[in-house]
Amino acid sequence: MFVLDSVLERDTIVLGSLPLCELLLMNDSQYPWLILVPRVEHACEIIDMSLSEQQQFLLESNAASKVLQRGFAAEKLNVAALGNVVAQLHIHHIARYAQDPAWPKPVWGLHEPRPYDASKASETIALLEQHWSSVDIEWQSR
Amino acid sequence: MFVLDSVLERDTIVLGSLPLCELLLMNDSQYPWLILVPRVEHACEIIDMSLSEQQQFLLESNAASKVLQRGFAAEKLNVAALGNVVAQLHIHHIARYAQDPAWPKPVWGLHEPRPYDASKASETIALLEQHWSSVDIEWQSR
Repeated sequence: MFVLDSVLERDTIVLGSLPLCELLLMNDSQYPWLILVPRVEHACEIIDMSLSEQQQFLLESNAASKVLQRGFAAEKLNVAALGNVVAQLHIHHIARYAQDPAWPKPVWGLHEPRPYDASKASETIALLEQHWSSVDIEWQSR
Repeated sequence: MFVLDSVLERDTIVLGSLPLCELLLMNDSQYPWLILVPRVEHACEIIDMSLSEQQQFLLESNAASKVLQRGFAAEKLNVAALGNVVAQLHIHHIARYAQDPAWPKPVWGLHEPRPYDASKASETIALLEQHWSSVDIEWQSR
């Protein structure tokens, strides 16, 4: 049975489920940052998924990327499967801007996360929901 | 017409062509590190490719990942499309080890690259060629 990794659960706001992946919002208000976690037990690498799972992941990853472009005017996307610390396969989708605190470096480990306050979290989730309606992947909110 | 970015050309050893992507070896002997550059003009993001190009990329990415696992006993793979510095779409595939100089951090910008000497480069390329023969993606050497 698939269980979301406890560190991912602690560090994110769980937004709900896509057909293959759990959709998480990194609880760091410095960057619009979605994490997709395929519900594939024991997967640590993209190649641990079957090819059909990978193709479905591609569609859901595309949706996340488009939402970050459309809703958050991402100047650049960073899409990455790292997993050096948390083994459970999870793929970062981060909107980057020439003015963001880490630019042009990668964001990981550079600055302490700044958790969302309740109002900023609601606003961000509403914006995600609004733009998610323009992509062809069903998101079942939690 | 597709032209490889000059910074990528300077920082890597160009290994040749896959059906969609140019295959590069990062000239940093600290990590087995392949870069795939889709020959898709003006692409900066994965979603700038058509879905069929993305699906072909997935196959070539799988091949690179398997070769890093089989030939270099990668303990973890880092697969990432960042592009904050070099805009041309390029996707890193890096074999990581609990004993490598950057572990568990991401490798980018952490340590100065250590270019291959001629004998280590030949040995690495030979190992790549040997294991590439076990994956189902044609690699045309330069």
